[in-house]
Amino acid sequence: MHILILGGAGMLGRKLAQRLAKDGHLGGKIISRLTLHDVVMPKPPDAAGFPVACHESDFSLPGEAETLVATRPDVIFHLAAIVSGEAETDFEKGYRINLDGTRQLYEAVRKIGEGYCPRLIFTSSIAVFGAPFPEAIGDEFFNTPLTSYGTQKTIGELLLSDYTRKGFFDGVGLRLPTICVRPGLPNKAASGFFSNICREPLAGQEAVLPVSEDVRHWHASPRAAVGFLLHAATMDSAMIGARRAITLPGLSCTVGEQIAALRKVGGDQVVARIRHAPDATIQRIVAGWPQNFDAKRAVSLGFKAESTFEEILRVHIEDELGGVIAA
Amino acid sequence: MHILILGGAGMLGRKLAQRLAKDGHLGGKIISRLTLHDVVMPKPPDAAGFPVACHESDFSLPGEAETLVATRPDVIFHLAAIVSGEAETDFEKGYRINLDGTRQLYEAVRKIGEGYCPRLIFTSSIAVFGAPFPEAIGDEFFNTPLTSYGTQKTIGELLLSDYTRKGFFDGVGLRLPTICVRPGLPNKAASGFFSNICREPLAGQEAVLPVSEDVRHWHASPRAAVGFLLHAATMDSAMIGARRAITLPGLSCTVGEQIAALRKVGGDQVVARIRHAPDATIQRIVAGWPQNFDAKRAVSLGFKAESTFEEILRVHIEDELGGVIAA
Repeated sequence: MHILILGGAGMLGRKLAQRLAKDGHLGGKIISRLTLHDVVMPKPPDAAGFPVACHESDFSLPGEAETLVATRPDVIFHLAAIVSGEAETDFEKGYRINLDGTRQLYEAVRKIGEGYCPRLIFTSSIAVFGAPFPEAIGDEFFNTPLTSYGTQKTIGELLLSDYTRKGFFDGVGLRLPTICVRPGLPNKAASGFFSNICREPLAGQEAVLPVSEDVRHWHASPRAAVGFLLHAATMDSAMIGARRAITLPGLSCTVGEQIAALRKVGGDQVVARIRHAPDATIQRIVAGWPQNFDAKRAVSLGFKAESTFEEILRVHIEDELGGVIAA
Repeated sequence: MHILILGGAGMLGRKLAQRLAKDGHLGGKIISRLTLHDVVMPKPPDAAGFPVACHESDFSLPGEAETLVATRPDVIFHLAAIVSGEAETDFEKGYRINLDGTRQLYEAVRKIGEGYCPRLIFTSSIAVFGAPFPEAIGDEFFNTPLTSYGTQKTIGELLLSDYTRKGFFDGVGLRLPTICVRPGLPNKAASGFFSNICREPLAGQEAVLPVSEDVRHWHASPRAAVGFLLHAATMDSAMIGARRAITLPGLSCTVGEQIAALRKVGGDQVVARIRHAPDATIQRIVAGWPQNFDAKRAVSLGFKAESTFEEILRVHIEDELGGVIAA
């Protein structure tokens, strides 16, 4: 089995590649080859028992997508995207990568023809939804994105369903929750604080909380996200039906509940590293975000996420900190 | 006021142009100029009291959209599209015209900049919805198209909202009911029979009914459709909010109810010209179409349609047949 990951240098792409290297198989089939692609050179995972090819290019350029799929990978993970903040400030770049790039990938697969029909997993986002929201967003809530990023992801989902319906590939769209605790350095993304207030204190650093503790949001761990991707690649896709984009399960909790879990896991001295510094701009942005979902469909399709924030923290401590919390 | 109509040679484009010529003004402003464009040369409306320029080209070709908007029309009616049947059989052509063409038009407007922000009316379709449906589709039902045409129209709506949000134009998306009774010759739309079984018998010709009489569908007359377009061009668009695509009002009735109205209006000899010839392919396509809507939002925004099928037939007899039914 040959697997292609677009966005292979990103946080999720690296974790997915590492998991594939560890497992050596996917859905009961031996992995014979892995191709990683990104706009910056991806690093191959450690100790893979199969050949790994790494490529660096802009996949929205003419011919790039064709080159990537010419070897006919059996499974394509399309994780490549311009993130929400940048897609909002750089309108043309957002559309070029998130819409044109995605469409060119789909087209490249379609044009191979000859019965080639890979499983194609597209990571979408809860940004396909726009306020006002119900208390919990159900599987049939409509897509009215309020950002260019959300618009681009919604279009990617629509094309995914149409190309799948036409038999050009076997598409699965995944609307990921916010990934928390995100490893790496703090960033300036408006959603960054959800992870920062856990990651930094657990590592002995101070973190800034720019919103009030009653802000509610929708989370899943990086480990759960890799699980979503693997399940999407191996599940019986006939069960999905015509509506190929799936709102994934996650955990809805408030910042206050995050902090309570952090106290339980790390004690008062960890929580004391959170500095409250309200930021009106971030408060306003976050107020327009989804807070809770009722992801019945995904659960019935076998997707699994954490059920407590404590569990999310323990995953982080295990996977990123070698089990050690900074004193 | 300068008005541009894309799809100006189509049924709706011609009727709209004729109405503009008759009125001489739009929303209280004198029309100073009308530009008609289509892939076949449009004919200018009769007796227009303003200059009418007619252009023939493929607006999806590079540079065409830029040329069309270079004169900065105040109102753009974008009615140009590959119809559902053809978009389904010719995948590439459907995407090239309905997606790329639409996007290039939006891009051409955006790239002018300099505060240019025309009212842009985009005709969408109830094909943005896909079965299974509730008894009546409400304003917040989700878009899960089951055709390439419906996918393309949904994408056109999403882009319309995003470009409007960004201030590049002032977009209004109109999800037209099926236009009935459609004058002229049958086109490639699978929905053609809804009109054929009225138009041909009223003109003394035989028509084929390929579905059973219990098929329910959603209709508005060409006259109502022109009314929708004019209202969309002149209404206070601030009332629409962020969700720029509007499901328009229409009349929900069965083919049997259509025939009963036809009998009332034209008598048994007219109805006898309908030949029942079930077509499994059309039956299957139509089974996936919406049957009824609850278009509260459009009604509250001032859009109006017919309330009986008899009324729709009388509009046709008045507007197309000079009041005369074939004996």
